[in-house]
Amino acid sequence: MDRLPGFRDFFPDPVPHPDLGRMEERNHIFNTWRQVTRRYGFKEYDGPPLETLDLYKAKSGDEIVHQLYHFTDKGNREVAMRPEMTPTLARMIAAHQRGYKKPMKWFSIPQLFRYERQQKGRLREHFQLNADIIGESDHSADAELIALLIDVLRALGMTHEDFVIRLSSRDAWQAFFKERCHDEAKAYEFYQAVDKLERETPEASTEKLSKIGISYEEVMQFIQAAEPTGDLQAILDQMKARGLDEYIKIDYGVIRGLAYYTGVVFEAFDRKGEFRAIAGGGRYDHLIKLISGGKVDQPSLGFGMGVVLADMLRDKGLFPKATPAVDLYFQISDESLREESITLIQKLRDMGIAVEWPLVQAGGNKQFKAALELGAGHVALLTEAGTVELKNLATRENEQLSADAFLERFRA
Amino acid sequence: MDRLPGFRDFFPDPVPHPDLGRMEERNHIFNTWRQVTRRYGFKEYDGPPLETLDLYKAKSGDEIVHQLYHFTDKGNREVAMRPEMTPTLARMIAAHQRGYKKPMKWFSIPQLFRYERQQKGRLREHFQLNADIIGESDHSADAELIALLIDVLRALGMTHEDFVIRLSSRDAWQAFFKERCHDEAKAYEFYQAVDKLERETPEASTEKLSKIGISYEEVMQFIQAAEPTGDLQAILDQMKARGLDEYIKIDYGVIRGLAYYTGVVFEAFDRKGEFRAIAGGGRYDHLIKLISGGKVDQPSLGFGMGVVLADMLRDKGLFPKATPAVDLYFQISDESLREESITLIQKLRDMGIAVEWPLVQAGGNKQFKAALELGAGHVALLTEAGTVELKNLATRENEQLSADAFLERFRA
Repeated sequence: MDRLPGFRDFFPDPVPHPDLGRMEERNHIFNTWRQVTRRYGFKEYDGPPLETLDLYKAKSGDEIVHQLYHFTDKGNREVAMRPEMTPTLARMIAAHQRGYKKPMKWFSIPQLFRYERQQKGRLREHFQLNADIIGESDHSADAELIALLIDVLRALGMTHEDFVIRLSSRDAWQAFFKERCHDEAKAYEFYQAVDKLERETPEASTEKLSKIGISYEEVMQFIQAAEPTGDLQAILDQMKARGLDEYIKIDYGVIRGLAYYTGVVFEAFDRKGEFRAIAGGGRYDHLIKLISGGKVDQPSLGFGMGVVLADMLRDKGLFPKATPAVDLYFQISDESLREESITLIQKLRDMGIAVEWPLVQAGGNKQFKAALELGAGHVALLTEAGTVELKNLATRENEQLSADAFLERFRA
Repeated sequence: MDRLPGFRDFFPDPVPHPDLGRMEERNHIFNTWRQVTRRYGFKEYDGPPLETLDLYKAKSGDEIVHQLYHFTDKGNREVAMRPEMTPTLARMIAAHQRGYKKPMKWFSIPQLFRYERQQKGRLREHFQLNADIIGESDHSADAELIALLIDVLRALGMTHEDFVIRLSSRDAWQAFFKERCHDEAKAYEFYQAVDKLERETPEASTEKLSKIGISYEEVMQFIQAAEPTGDLQAILDQMKARGLDEYIKIDYGVIRGLAYYTGVVFEAFDRKGEFRAIAGGGRYDHLIKLISGGKVDQPSLGFGMGVVLADMLRDKGLFPKATPAVDLYFQISDESLREESITLIQKLRDMGIAVEWPLVQAGGNKQFKAALELGAGHVALLTEAGTVELKNLATRENEQLSADAFLERFRA
């Protein structure tokens, strides 16, 4: 029986085939995400992987339904596997934000699901870091969030030669639009046209824009001028104070397709352009009001960092070598000493030491080979005399210790 | 908009209502699970939360379908949200076990889903630790797995006064059955009757057993005698060598309902009997063969430890106090020093220090209060003279340091 197309298994190291998902890679990314968000004072939350379908319709309209895993449950509820985390966050915030000090700096590492029939061979699930700041409208919150994004990528080993944050502003585009078109109803159409500039031919873009009464040339000039608005300049200044300005550039070519962004928007890109956006986000000041049915209103911003990251780290050789599975391999060469050996193994484990040992009788060579394969730091062997032979596998030093001295050696 | 019934949100500390799910509790349990499994040389894996419905039918028959979240996806596949991890594990093992050394000691922390209409108010999802040993038929593997189970509970603060492992054997029950009934087709019916002994009246059990031609009294006598089989005695001896024998007792009242167990079975119970079983498992030597369609045959055993654990830890007050969100709160009292302060904050974070700070202008008292509420270890303040005032919030000591000396203080 096979797994479903678009879903992944994650295997322990060493994986027998290079195309298998590696659990250790995933844990390396998750651990780094947790470490860096903690430095920034972000706290972890989580929500259900299954939500009501209405939660997603409220935010993104009916068209999103075509991209979802959704079904009717046995209680006749229309439900969907979460395609993104922000609606869940907005629901949680709307229900309980009164009990939390502002600004709230929250993160989560959800698994997300999308079912798109046409995308053969592409993933239908992936994991994402979601980091959000709720309850602060000042641009310093935007700078704090973008600095977090940069530091997460730096902590994973990437430098300003590997990636860049393209910083843009919905406000700037809105001002541009308002000067040229007085039909606000066309604004979303305009944003969509700008969003697709890099993926469509100039001819196609020209046609779309001219329907709104805006010329392709003035759009391209606006992008090329890259004049920072006041908000963006303030963010640039803060990034400079942090020494992170080389990671960032004003780029109005980024606008973010989704309807709900309201202010600063940004995306993190591979400098070489080989991968899709590594991360993207921005302000969504009205979303919580929308999700809460008008009950709660909090300025908010956030980003999501997705699965492209793992491909990029693999490509650049930035995943660390497999970490050793055990600290010590405890050999048993004399079966009459098995129980006494087990007693010592238990004591080592009680002290937090990771110990492997032969569950059944095995030759000395086989045991030693197992120790090497596990990357054990030491091998130990209890002798008939009650002493322990300890070999350091890094230095190849051998020692003969009393059982007590042996245990003492490994006490933290 | 509400979340679905039976699903949970997990909020950051401090939670505004005691009935809200706490992410920190969940992380405390997951971290402990990962630490202790590592000591035992177990390696982490994961699989998809969505699998083909057939995977579960193969293992548990058609009746399990009534307890599942299942639906037809847009590609016309019958799919189900995973109700347990063992079928996924068996599928992964069947596909790639040849590339791994035996025994394989693997663990996972899956979220599992069950939809049972009648269970109003009960959870429809929960997280579980699954630990399995694949490829070792010797009883020492059973002992290793049971020792892991005990040590996980000990690491969470529980003692032999809190819980006990009830150890039993399908083999012992099978021998009992064979002596009394020659119709092997009735074996499963018999196991089911024994499994329900503690939840049904003696009359109901007597009736069920007599249909198989076995008397209630001889079943009860067998349980009360609690004579260990050879396998169980060997496990008891190993637990004694580990100093863990006080955590374990032979108890044939445990048999495990599921059809696929083959040898030793066990459950971890609250000594006071206030909670359902904390964990349960045993040998399932034929399951991988079944799932792989006969291609792969490996002796296997495992346990699952579920959500009851969290209720029990809460009840016993064994969750640690909330861990501080930040190491240092960096105050800004003079707005003209904001950028220089940000530079220091960035340097601290680069060294791995968790720092919080006022994103916008705020009064000194408000900032100090925020530092206390976050549980910060220190507060710092950059002065106009370029020095840093550092206050240790535990000792209330104040120091005046140069910026360099201040950074040096926090360097790891």
